[in-house]
Amino acid sequence: MSTPNPTHTHGWTAVPRSHSLFLKDVSPSNTKPLHVSDLPLPSTPLAHRIRTYAHSHLPPATYNHSMRVFLYGQALARQHFPHFLAFTETFYLTCLLHDIGTTAANMQESQMSFEFRGAWVAMEVLAAEGAERSMWESVAEAVVRHQDLGDVGTITGMGLLVQLATVFDNIGANPTLIHPSTIESVVHAFPRHGWSGCFAATVRDEIWKKPWCHTTAIEHFAEMVENNELMAPYEEP
Amino acid sequence: MSTPNPTHTHGWTAVPRSHSLFLKDVSPSNTKPLHVSDLPLPSTPLAHRIRTYAHSHLPPATYNHSMRVFLYGQALARQHFPHFLAFTETFYLTCLLHDIGTTAANMQESQMSFEFRGAWVAMEVLAAEGAERSMWESVAEAVVRHQDLGDVGTITGMGLLVQLATVFDNIGANPTLIHPSTIESVVHAFPRHGWSGCFAATVRDEIWKKPWCHTTAIEHFAEMVENNELMAPYEEP
Repeated sequence: MSTPNPTHTHGWTAVPRSHSLFLKDVSPSNTKPLHVSDLPLPSTPLAHRIRTYAHSHLPPATYNHSMRVFLYGQALARQHFPHFLAFTETFYLTCLLHDIGTTAANMQESQMSFEFRGAWVAMEVLAAEGAERSMWESVAEAVVRHQDLGDVGTITGMGLLVQLATVFDNIGANPTLIHPSTIESVVHAFPRHGWSGCFAATVRDEIWKKPWCHTTAIEHFAEMVENNELMAPYEEP
Repeated sequence: MSTPNPTHTHGWTAVPRSHSLFLKDVSPSNTKPLHVSDLPLPSTPLAHRIRTYAHSHLPPATYNHSMRVFLYGQALARQHFPHFLAFTETFYLTCLLHDIGTTAANMQESQMSFEFRGAWVAMEVLAAEGAERSMWESVAEAVVRHQDLGDVGTITGMGLLVQLATVFDNIGANPTLIHPSTIESVVHAFPRHGWSGCFAATVRDEIWKKPWCHTTAIEHFAEMVENNELMAPYEEP
């Protein structure tokens, strides 16, 4: 592997898989109001092309969710674990593509759990766009495991940041780590459009079509998503 | 999906992910001596080609493990859940390829957890050999999840059978479900060649090279593998 610092650049560090263990030394005293202007989007040509891909393939609500996941992840990193800022661009690509497996086309044509289907799509898209291997492998690894919540073992720093950001947006987990003003700025830029109901329906739809799917590993997931009290003030009809 | 009975042919059924839940109505009274001649290997042209691929790419001990996993899986199905015999050929391909991610070449060139790297290799190999999509997707889904042990949710029948057979060979789990005479016949055909020590070393090697890897989700896995008392009589120096 010849790329300078691929480990840091693409998030190939080992961290506890347990969110509580990883967050045990994190203090809400570091939580502060942030504006989306404090959380700039990567602007490399690759970043622009993948954003275009995501925007053209994802339903609007899922695209907005993906952008919010990036912004929340950046807010978490800036405030609480700034060493994770080292892989911002790759994290952005992971966020843009993490739910690509949930599109109607991918759900229809694949019998695989959406995370796994999505990881393969992400790998192919990134490789075709000239991304280096260490980058697209990190994205794929994180996408495969982005719903692999558990207490035992480790995961990549990339994978953990995606998990923390997605559970914040999807079920309002760890609410003290991001300031309400930050949430307001993020949802103003990328509205939820009733994301709680929308994603709960997606979860149920996948389980209906693919009763073997990995999403079933999260107990009562659809219910947790639709009962996201943290984000209730920001839902829209 | 136009293939007749792809669900049954390729193992796309939903079963409990929990081994104890799945096995709760299984009785050791159905365990009986079987010979490898009772557990014939699939003989389609595709089966032959994938066996050749596995034999030429896997180290001998890993190849023998893969063949034992198939035979143990078939023994489990024949005795305890014969409806799983419907997807024998696809199960065979899954067994042959489930550890392809552990080869020196794959471990060296990929930073991904070996199950995920292996699933991707399996998909490419099978697709290149003309397997239908429902088949290679089922293999990939099962390979991704073959170390995804847990109590919550569901998994494909294919995935569960691979898990049951691998944990039987690797850690001696559920010992009453396969007769000692069956084990003797299987290890005579495909000797362990010190598999317990060999695979424990592979587990530790992956965790050393890829400390973020999914294998870490199984607590004390290397220790359980090397302390496999059921298979101790069949280990060779």
